[in-house]
Amino acid sequence: MTQDPLVIFTPSGKRGRVARGTPVLTAARQLGVDLDSVCGGRGICSKCQVAPSFGDFPKHGVHAAEDALSPRNAVEDRYDRVRGLKPGRRLGCQAQILGDMVIDVPPESQVHRQVVRKAASARPITMDPATRLVLVEVAEPDMHEPSGDFERVKAALKDQWGIEGVTAGLPVLAKLQPALRKGNWQVSLALHQPANAEEFEMLDVWPGLHEGGLYGLAVDLGSTTIAAHLCDLADGRVLASSGLMNPQIRFGEDLMSRVSYAMMNPGGDAEMTRAVREALDRLATEIAAEGGIDPKLIVETVFVMNPVMHHLLLGIDPVELGQAPFALATSGAMTLAARDLDLAAINPQARTYILPCIAGHVGADAAGVALAEEPDRSDDLVLVVDVGTNAEILLGDRNGVLACSSPTGPAFEGAQISSGQRAAPGAIERLEIDPATKEPRFRVIGCDLWSDDPGFAEATKGTGITGICGSGIIEAVAEMRMAGLLDPSGLIGSAERTGTARCEPTGRTHAYLVHDATETGGTRITVTQGDIRAIQLAKSALYAGARLLMDQRGVDRVDRIVLAGAFGAHISPRHAMVLGMIPDAPLDKVTSAGNAAGHGARIALCNRAARTRIEETVRHIHKVETAIEPRFQEHFVAANAIPHASDPFPELSSVVTLPDVHFGASSGGEDGGRRRRRRG
Amino acid sequence: MTQDPLVIFTPSGKRGRVARGTPVLTAARQLGVDLDSVCGGRGICSKCQVAPSFGDFPKHGVHAAEDALSPRNAVEDRYDRVRGLKPGRRLGCQAQILGDMVIDVPPESQVHRQVVRKAASARPITMDPATRLVLVEVAEPDMHEPSGDFERVKAALKDQWGIEGVTAGLPVLAKLQPALRKGNWQVSLALHQPANAEEFEMLDVWPGLHEGGLYGLAVDLGSTTIAAHLCDLADGRVLASSGLMNPQIRFGEDLMSRVSYAMMNPGGDAEMTRAVREALDRLATEIAAEGGIDPKLIVETVFVMNPVMHHLLLGIDPVELGQAPFALATSGAMTLAARDLDLAAINPQARTYILPCIAGHVGADAAGVALAEEPDRSDDLVLVVDVGTNAEILLGDRNGVLACSSPTGPAFEGAQISSGQRAAPGAIERLEIDPATKEPRFRVIGCDLWSDDPGFAEATKGTGITGICGSGIIEAVAEMRMAGLLDPSGLIGSAERTGTARCEPTGRTHAYLVHDATETGGTRITVTQGDIRAIQLAKSALYAGARLLMDQRGVDRVDRIVLAGAFGAHISPRHAMVLGMIPDAPLDKVTSAGNAAGHGARIALCNRAARTRIEETVRHIHKVETAIEPRFQEHFVAANAIPHASDPFPELSSVVTLPDVHFGASSGGEDGGRRRRRRG
Repeated sequence: MTQDPLVIFTPSGKRGRVARGTPVLTAARQLGVDLDSVCGGRGICSKCQVAPSFGDFPKHGVHAAEDALSPRNAVEDRYDRVRGLKPGRRLGCQAQILGDMVIDVPPESQVHRQVVRKAASARPITMDPATRLVLVEVAEPDMHEPSGDFERVKAALKDQWGIEGVTAGLPVLAKLQPALRKGNWQVSLALHQPANAEEFEMLDVWPGLHEGGLYGLAVDLGSTTIAAHLCDLADGRVLASSGLMNPQIRFGEDLMSRVSYAMMNPGGDAEMTRAVREALDRLATEIAAEGGIDPKLIVETVFVMNPVMHHLLLGIDPVELGQAPFALATSGAMTLAARDLDLAAINPQARTYILPCIAGHVGADAAGVALAEEPDRSDDLVLVVDVGTNAEILLGDRNGVLACSSPTGPAFEGAQISSGQRAAPGAIERLEIDPATKEPRFRVIGCDLWSDDPGFAEATKGTGITGICGSGIIEAVAEMRMAGLLDPSGLIGSAERTGTARCEPTGRTHAYLVHDATETGGTRITVTQGDIRAIQLAKSALYAGARLLMDQRGVDRVDRIVLAGAFGAHISPRHAMVLGMIPDAPLDKVTSAGNAAGHGARIALCNRAARTRIEETVRHIHKVETAIEPRFQEHFVAANAIPHASDPFPELSSVVTLPDVHFGASSGGEDGGRRRRRRG
Repeated sequence: MTQDPLVIFTPSGKRGRVARGTPVLTAARQLGVDLDSVCGGRGICSKCQVAPSFGDFPKHGVHAAEDALSPRNAVEDRYDRVRGLKPGRRLGCQAQILGDMVIDVPPESQVHRQVVRKAASARPITMDPATRLVLVEVAEPDMHEPSGDFERVKAALKDQWGIEGVTAGLPVLAKLQPALRKGNWQVSLALHQPANAEEFEMLDVWPGLHEGGLYGLAVDLGSTTIAAHLCDLADGRVLASSGLMNPQIRFGEDLMSRVSYAMMNPGGDAEMTRAVREALDRLATEIAAEGGIDPKLIVETVFVMNPVMHHLLLGIDPVELGQAPFALATSGAMTLAARDLDLAAINPQARTYILPCIAGHVGADAAGVALAEEPDRSDDLVLVVDVGTNAEILLGDRNGVLACSSPTGPAFEGAQISSGQRAAPGAIERLEIDPATKEPRFRVIGCDLWSDDPGFAEATKGTGITGICGSGIIEAVAEMRMAGLLDPSGLIGSAERTGTARCEPTGRTHAYLVHDATETGGTRITVTQGDIRAIQLAKSALYAGARLLMDQRGVDRVDRIVLAGAFGAHISPRHAMVLGMIPDAPLDKVTSAGNAAGHGARIALCNRAARTRIEETVRHIHKVETAIEPRFQEHFVAANAIPHASDPFPELSSVVTLPDVHFGASSGGEDGGRRRRRRG
């Protein structure tokens, strides 16, 4: 009759009997329930809030009376008074179990809470960051038993948290003594445990309970664009997303030009390293301001990038990546000090994790895509295409994954496009052309209205209409083809042949006028024949890479396609299909995943185990080297045209009909469309 | 009859049978014989040289014929031609065992060779440094099986040396690719394995065989003097020893003044940190030049120092060390990157090991003394006194060790002495006074002659005679007492009372003229009453500390005394005894050990296991805090006099007779000799 009380935790369903008077937090630990605590049960941090339930729970055979839990105590009353406790909530470290009961652990009180990512297809991230915050109560020094303050902190971590093997850098040791005395021998510590490591590094220390949070930066370092997410390491929340142009563009637009710059100019690689590191430091400052946090609270960064950017960021001359056999200096994942990358704006002890590279042309960005899209766990055969200046392409399923990269050039990111620009407020990201009138309508980043909606001019007054970003140019070219303004070879028709004055002559070719605000001092945005050629080259390279992997796998079709890209809005599957960027697939099996490489970086930031997983996965990905495959060149040449509706796209033909127009005798313009592009 | 050949290695005596045709190096490895090799048996490094013996060895039952070893091959011929092979020597990796034989491994071919230290009493150091050089042959990159160059280096280390868990910093990764290609896929690596660690860090890489050696710096960072040894990490040889004044002296001569400076001046601790780090960087450059090596080949540094210098070097505000309970920020041993201490002159990846501190007033220098003198392994009760601005004192035997520090001030290092100076060429380090004539004779550092030897003037023309260093001032004061120029209270007699014009009046007191070269533009060196007082204060503090430990241990006498000090020549036991620096002991049981703390640093530099050992030893040393022991003050006051021969020194009285003179009514001068000194 005097049996110990039975406690059932929801949502985990974990249950067991605990001694009468056991605090809920202690019970949770005994039963292996995921209940957070930073202060270790001192009633300070409030992370262990629970919601007790009373009444009958016939399914569990429990009747929980109101007095099954100890009444609210002084600590809880004070906490409620000072900070407020939601109705029905109790502090798990204060409330004691006195009788049978059911206790709910709300999501925000779980350590390993799940974070739902934006994209509908995406799997949630389980929070388990490499850096965590803990509060310890440290013994005061004793002259007769002398030991260092840090040694007593380590003893406290072992006693109070079971954490051993802790080291600390000099700047943290220098902060320790004042923090301990100011915090009256209670301090909060940021402890970092790298993937696959037993040891912890103390990254920072604060007197008492640190309530400012810990943050991380997930960075996709592209050849053209740098995109970053600022995440809260407690709950994975994205506080701000920001991007800027890679300043290395002034040394060469594509990767091969940068490798050449390093080869031709002594110290050129160091110059490019400096440029990108400075940009990253600036980006960190800006994104912290945008997120409203102190940049010194950024204690972790995670990077994905292609191999050339990988080497240039790390300060390694990329020259070997410019010539066969394209040897990487190092391909493994790395855990570094962020200061080794000259990231001075963030916490001086911040750590950096760099995802592994797959091969000399298939980088950590491809690893990031693999981590986000998990082709290795797919039941059906999936083609994942990450569009950038260098496209990363993965093809596979549970039976194996193939990978390659393809030198698309920067056109998809708005570079090498006459009115192109980075995805930023004011950039055209969506575009439609009326097939009858040939008139365009568009949307710009930062405004939800279409250009022909009432109020559009007013709504875009702040940003203006500044250019076309990557997703915008893809839609523009596809829409021009669908509206009969382009023939299959990619030639723009004249005003006479297309029937619209928007097709203006420019020298020996024509351009399509999208927007003209020159009268009011604004921009004039056109799509030129050169723009079309640049997009044709880019999409041919992309298509050829995908086909090469399909050849290797011995298939003619894939079950589904995931389109990803760091730039602008999600790529429109329909327009990508019209353009011929991707192989044949049912249109409803083509989805758009946004910045998959960046998502992969964010997953690795929020979940330590994901780092171990991607390191293992990468070892099993089979790499295909496009540079030495003659079939890549064949596919590339064959893919130059923008196909006709009666070309092998049966699913597509039910959706759109492409006009069978021809504006010229040959598809070759002044730029020699069939020239093999330099890698980039 | 066709038994495998028997091979006996000397001097280890290890023996066994190996398959006919086994290379000597392979046989040595099979039998656990200590035979060096950097190139792993490629006939490149010549580290595995052996001396085969032929003839009859009845004791071992072996007859070794000339053909028991394969004849010299082309690799050995080429090596002999290019670099020369000593007669009778063979390359162990090339010579194959064909019959029974005896093979001698000369000392220079042993990895764990023993290094004999200078001091007669000192134990030899067994070489086993934390950083070693290995040569590997690395697989070339393969486009179809892509992997990073570093990953292939790691695979080669595992295959060829059984070494796993290797990491590399960015600067080394940046050097790897060119080194591999220049070395035709053979590279030499400097691999560092910290004490107690399984992992290795690659500190540097060179194409092919690196023949420039690897070096380390053992530094005793004193309050007044910084002393360093440059050691060859292959054989422990000291290439150069050098020292300079600690530039922090301008912020305060003793430690307590520096702590005060940090407390009174915002940023004062950082200023002192910068000053000492700059001095160390300069010292490294100078000592490398003196040793004739490239400073970038210094891959390790080891430091010993007192707690205040410890914190100031590490960039930690020492304020807590200035007030009870004298809490250290950290007391454990540390392995750091040398660049974290701004040591820019040496290898950018160099590692630093810092010995553990024992308590808030007993630092890593005391740990160094314990490592060098091993009181914890002594059968008899030994008192080890390390004389510096802060004296470190250890008392103990196998049953336990006590430790304390005593604030002697900088007088023993020549500071606060009117003609005092650091131990450097030109400084008087030995001094004798004729008891009859009261005339002095002396020797200076850098010259083996006495000042009354013929040719002394000529021999010292280069350095001059510039001042008196620590060991010189100790001898000067003791000799003055023995010659009747000082009374037991420490008062200098006048010319009339002493009978020599060298006792000159200076205000209300007198000074003894040691040397006067003012006529030829040289120096005038005297010992003033103030100098005597400074030495009296210093020796009283030292004596009081030693007595305090004896009280704690419950003894009135010790079995033996070891005198150590970083400065100048070895301290003369006889003079120290006359002065009353140390407690009563038979004179033949008092030895002088030179810079024991520095020796300890050198041991930790040459032997990785010694680091683990001292970390363990320090945990068992019992610390006594002089600052809070009232008996320390009592002993200090009682020790002020320079005792008379009939005082309790029976052994001493048989050696020297101290005159029973008295020059004044009281021992107090203008400086109030009984005032308790500030810690320093």
